[in-house]
Amino acid sequence: MRLLGLDPGLQHTGWGIVDAHGNPPGSRLSFVAAGTIHTDPKQSLADRLVEIHDGLKQVIDLYQPTEAAVEETFVNKNPTSTLKLGLARGVVLMTPASYKLPVAEYPANLIKKSVVGAGHAGKEQVQMMVRVLLPASSAESPDAADALAVAICHAHHLSSLRRWGAKDFREVAR
Amino acid sequence: MRLLGLDPGLQHTGWGIVDAHGNPPGSRLSFVAAGTIHTDPKQSLADRLVEIHDGLKQVIDLYQPTEAAVEETFVNKNPTSTLKLGLARGVVLMTPASYKLPVAEYPANLIKKSVVGAGHAGKEQVQMMVRVLLPASSAESPDAADALAVAICHAHHLSSLRRWGAKDFREVAR
Repeated sequence: MRLLGLDPGLQHTGWGIVDAHGNPPGSRLSFVAAGTIHTDPKQSLADRLVEIHDGLKQVIDLYQPTEAAVEETFVNKNPTSTLKLGLARGVVLMTPASYKLPVAEYPANLIKKSVVGAGHAGKEQVQMMVRVLLPASSAESPDAADALAVAICHAHHLSSLRRWGAKDFREVAR
Repeated sequence: MRLLGLDPGLQHTGWGIVDAHGNPPGSRLSFVAAGTIHTDPKQSLADRLVEIHDGLKQVIDLYQPTEAAVEETFVNKNPTSTLKLGLARGVVLMTPASYKLPVAEYPANLIKKSVVGAGHAGKEQVQMMVRVLLPASSAESPDAADALAVAICHAHHLSSLRRWGAKDFREVAR
C-alpha cells in the first residue's frame, strides 16, 4: 500500500509518499519521497492552480500511489484567506481522484494526534515526530513534513479500518 | 473570438459559450451553447470536483473556446460556504488554464453592470437581459444564464481592451 499525503496551499503544496507494510496493514512505514510544489505569486491565480495540478500529476505518475489523504483546510477567520486555501485544496482533492485514487480527508488535530499523540501539538513537534517515524525523510521542507504527517495519519487509520474489515477509505474522515 | 463564461459552484457550475464578432471586437455577440454541470451531493467532495473538471474538459474539447472568464466568488460570511465555493472555483479556474486559455475574472457587480447597466441588479434582471442580448439562449437554466452573463461581460471588456490596444486579458479584472 503506497500512500500519498497532501498539505494544500496556494503558494506551497506539500506532498509525501510513504509505503505501508506489516500486519496489521500500516503498522510498518517506510519513507519513499516528499517535496513541495511552489507556485509563482507573479503568475495569475489560474496558472498557479495549473502548476499545482501539473506538479501533482508528475508525483502520481512517478510514484504510483494507491491511496491519497489530504489535510482538511483550517477555516480561517479571514474569508479571503479561506477562499485562497479553498482554491488550492479544490485542485489538490480533485487531482488524485481523477486518477481514481481513494481520497481521505483528516482534520489537522487528528493528524497531530496520530503523529505526536496530542491534538494541540505545535508544528515543530509534528516535524520532529515525522523525522523519528520516517528517519530517511529528515531533509524535507516543513510543507513536505506536514504532508508526510498526513500520510502517517492515514496509515494509522488504515490499520484500524482493516482490523474492522472496512473497505472504503473515503469514509475515514466522516 | 469564442468566449467561455463560467459560474462556479460545488453543486451547479454554469457554463456558456458566446461568439464575439464585429468591429470593435466583441460588439456583436451570438449564442453558441450553454449548460450546467451538476454534481451528486452523495459523492465524496473529491469525486464531485472530478465531475466538474471532466464536465468542463468536455465543453472545452467540444466547443474550442479561445478565452475564458469566471465570476469572482462572493466571499460569504459563513466560512464553510466560502471554502466550498473556493474548492469548486479552484477547479473551474484551473481547467481552462490547463488548456492554455487566458482566464479573466470579474466581480459579480461588474458582470451585472455590464449586462443590465446596474451593479445591484437582481438575478432575474440579469437573466432577462441575457435573453434579450442572446435570444437563442432562452431555454437555459439560471446557472447557465449567469455563465452567459460572464461571457457577455468579458465581450464588453474585450472590445474596450482592443480599442486600447491591450493584449493580456488576464489583466482585465485587476
